This record gives sequence, structure tokens and C-alpha cells, in this order.
Amino acid sequence: MTRRIKLTVAYDGSAYVGWQSQINGVSVQQTIERALSKLTGLPAPITGASRTDAGVHALGQVAHFDIDSSIPDEKFPLALNTKLPPDIRAINAQTVAPTFHARFHARRKRYRYEIHNSRCAPVLERSHRWHVPVPLDIDAMREEARYMIGEHDFAAFAASGSAVKQTVRTVFDAEVNGSNYDPALIELWISGDGFLYNMVRIFAGTLVDASLGKLGPGAVRRAIRARDRLLLGQTAPAHGLTLMNIEYDRGDEENAATV
Amino acid sequence: MTRRIKLTVAYDGSAYVGWQSQINGVSVQQTIERALSKLTGLPAPITGASRTDAGVHALGQVAHFDIDSSIPDEKFPLALNTKLPPDIRAINAQTVAPTFHARFHARRKRYRYEIHNSRCAPVLERSHRWHVPVPLDIDAMREEARYMIGEHDFAAFAASGSAVKQTVRTVFDAEVNGSNYDPALIELWISGDGFLYNMVRIFAGTLVDASLGKLGPGAVRRAIRARDRLLLGQTAPAHGLTLMNIEYDRGDEENAATV
Repeated sequence: MTRRIKLTVAYDGSAYVGWQSQINGVSVQQTIERALSKLTGLPAPITGASRTDAGVHALGQVAHFDIDSSIPDEKFPLALNTKLPPDIRAINAQTVAPTFHARFHARRKRYRYEIHNSRCAPVLERSHRWHVPVPLDIDAMREEARYMIGEHDFAAFAASGSAVKQTVRTVFDAEVNGSNYDPALIELWISGDGFLYNMVRIFAGTLVDASLGKLGPGAVRRAIRARDRLLLGQTAPAHGLTLMNIEYDRGDEENAATV
Repeated sequence: MTRRIKLTVAYDGSAYVGWQSQINGVSVQQTIERALSKLTGLPAPITGASRTDAGVHALGQVAHFDIDSSIPDEKFPLALNTKLPPDIRAINAQTVAPTFHARFHARRKRYRYEIHNSRCAPVLERSHRWHVPVPLDIDAMREEARYMIGEHDFAAFAASGSAVKQTVRTVFDAEVNGSNYDPALIELWISGDGFLYNMVRIFAGTLVDASLGKLGPGAVRRAIRARDRLLLGQTAPAHGLTLMNIEYDRGDEENAATV
């Protein structure tokens, strides 16, 4: 019997053109679709919650697809992982209501941006940390981050050339954390009901530029008000960014029992 | 004027046949020697403190070499890094006494072994963590680790076929730590005046096998007494191991001023 599965996946984005299939290289989506096809012998188109860019990683990307398979949910990730390369791992599979939609039903997405703030570049973490050699001021970064929180028109944070018309988003929290684990590590965490294309990378680059004194205090607030990309900082590189998790209304999953 | 430099380097060992030059691939040592040659225009043989194996990483390997260069110590790492690939980074350079020897004068070496203890394999850290999917018992691992501490004949920990005759070593400390940063991470830390070939990897594999109940409690103590490799556990894979730092007598570096 056909059922709809909500699949949670982790990936190292280094080797991919991004989540979405494109003509110029291998995408995460098509790699998972091929693995599913190997498992079931049938074409298996999947729909992802977030179209992560080339080089962006995920520890909790979510996708849905319909499948005619008798593999139970709890065995599904193990079975799929035998068909996936080691830089993509299925973490969880759950049968959900046939109306569940990974993208449209997402209520909250959380991203992490990792900065390696040390004179010396990282070696073991170089695929997922942005190296910033000049010492950063965490307090100054926190000061800017808090202007992100709330419902705002984030037009200033839209990548130029973006076709998106509706630029109002709600940011639930935005944090800047040092680390006892590694003194070189600064983590930015941001969660919201959705993000414009490149918004988190512009957020990260702006915090760094603000900390380095390239923008006056309050740059984020001024840019949001003026809807002006030029008042913000650089777009931080893709490889520091990781999609951490996506939350859904509980009802979507509880309906699964009725399938 | 020729001077002797003590160089501290970090590397991701994934792409190398190990520290030492071999016929079957590219070594870390030869990659650094070539970078030095590009910098100075002269051959630049270097001597490393530890011959790390294929796949083993380092955050604080030490090497020495003699060089005729006017680049000041503090600029040296930056200059050398322009000639090195991103998986090898020079961290520090210091002019030392011409008698300084990276290997013979090392007094204390510290290694870290990273275990990813989660049902799901790591993606971002897969180059430097050993994936152990079955839940481990940190207390049981600590219990075995403490038998390592002290001056012992570690013949049981010598890789079979090893030519080393003198197998007495002193282990200063051996710790097993969970992590608030990442619940999946278990770190083993061990420091000593020296280690036999594969000793740290056998130590890591033995702690895991002890935790899984494959060895009775006290396995490390019994194996040391009996000098019997068969009483210990598996040799853990190379890629979880990182040489963290090497300490020297302070005198070696203070003599530098007289050069």
C-alpha cells in the first residue's frame, strides 16, 4: 500500500550543487531519489522543505515522498543508508498523513552558522566553518543579532535579483555563542518561520562586519527600516551554514495513524 | 644565517599516507618539505616528532629543520601557509637552539581519540570520528582507562610485528569525557612520555570492547601483566585519532636567544 513518508536527513553539502536538482552537477535531492529508487525499483520523486544552496550542510533537512514499500518506519533509515554515500545519512523516517507537505507545513526552521575565529584556519572543521582571522567582539555581534528578532520586513536581507515579493518573516530567536569546547568557535543560531534566499548568510556576514567596525552600531535595525541591502554587511560563505532542524504542527504526524 | 626552527603544524590526515614519506603515496612530511623548498629555493629536509599513521590527524605535530631565511618567526607560518594545501596549516614557528631535536627531546605527547556514539553515523565530522552505533558505558570505559596510568611495560599494546624492543612507557593521564557540546561525542584523551606503534588505537578499541562486554572488567590490567595482545580489544580505526600537542623541556627553547 502506498504511504507518505516524512524523512529527516543529514548531509555534508561540500560535494553537491545544493539540495535542488540542477543541470550543472549532482544535487542532494537527486542522490536521495536514486537511493530510494534502488530500494524500491520505482521512480521516487521527493519534496524537500528547504532548498539549501551549494556547499550548505544540513543535520535536520526534511523531505516527503510517497512510496509502496513494506519496510517499517524504524528500519527505513538503515535500509536507505545502505544505498546512500557517506556524506548523506537518513536519520529518521515516519509515516505521515497523505496531506503532509515538507515545505508548506514547516512552521519553524533553525540554522546554525559556524565561525572559526582564530589567526590560524581550521583543518579538521574546514568544510563547515568560516575562517575569520581577526578577533571578533561577541557582545557587538549579540547587539546586532537582537534586532533580527520579531516580525519584520526583511527586504534588505533578500539577495539582489531575488524574485520573492513577500519579504515579511518572523525571527523567533537569534543568538551568538562562544564555546567552552573550542575557544576558536563562534556559533550563530537563528530560527524563524522562514528565511529569504541568502538571508542567514547576510545575517552572519553583517554580524562579522559590525564586529569589525565596518558598520555603525544598529546597522541591522537601520537596514530593516530602510529596506536597504547596502546598509548590511557581506554575504558570508555558504560552507559555514547548516540547516539544523525543521518543526511542524504536531497534527501532521498524529494523522499518520489513520493512513 | 642558518637557524634551526621548531615548527608546529596541524593537518587533516585523510588524504595522506601518514607523516613519513613512503613510496606508495603523498606524505605530510614531503608536502611540508616541498612547501619549504618553494619558500627558500633550497632542499629542506624536516624531522617530525611523531610518525603519525595514514589517516591520523594532528593539531600540534612538531618538526624541526635548519633554514637560511630572513623571514622572522612570527611571519613564518603565514608565509609557509601560502605554499601549503588547506589540509595542512603551519601554526607556529620558533627559532630554537641548533641542538634542538623534535623527536628525541619530546617529553610528553597528548592524543585525542573521538568516538561518535550514536545510531546514526556523523556527516560533518566523519573524517575524524569513529562511528560506534551501540550505546557505550562511559563509566566502564573510565574504569579500564585508569589502569593505563603509570609506568608500565606496554608490550601487550605493541602492534604485532613491531620491532620495538623497549616497551616500557609512562602514561601520565588517560581520560574519557562525554560532551555537553554534542551528546554523540565521546573523547578519549591520553598523554605519556611516548607511545608504541598503534598503542593509542588499541587503547581506544579496548575501551570500546570493554564497554560492550566483550572483555571482562580489568582487561587492561590483566593484559599489561601478561604482556598479551590477545587480552585486549580491537585496534580502533586511524581516522578517530588526533595528535594534540607535544611538550619539550623549556631549556630547548630558551637557548634560542643564543643562536
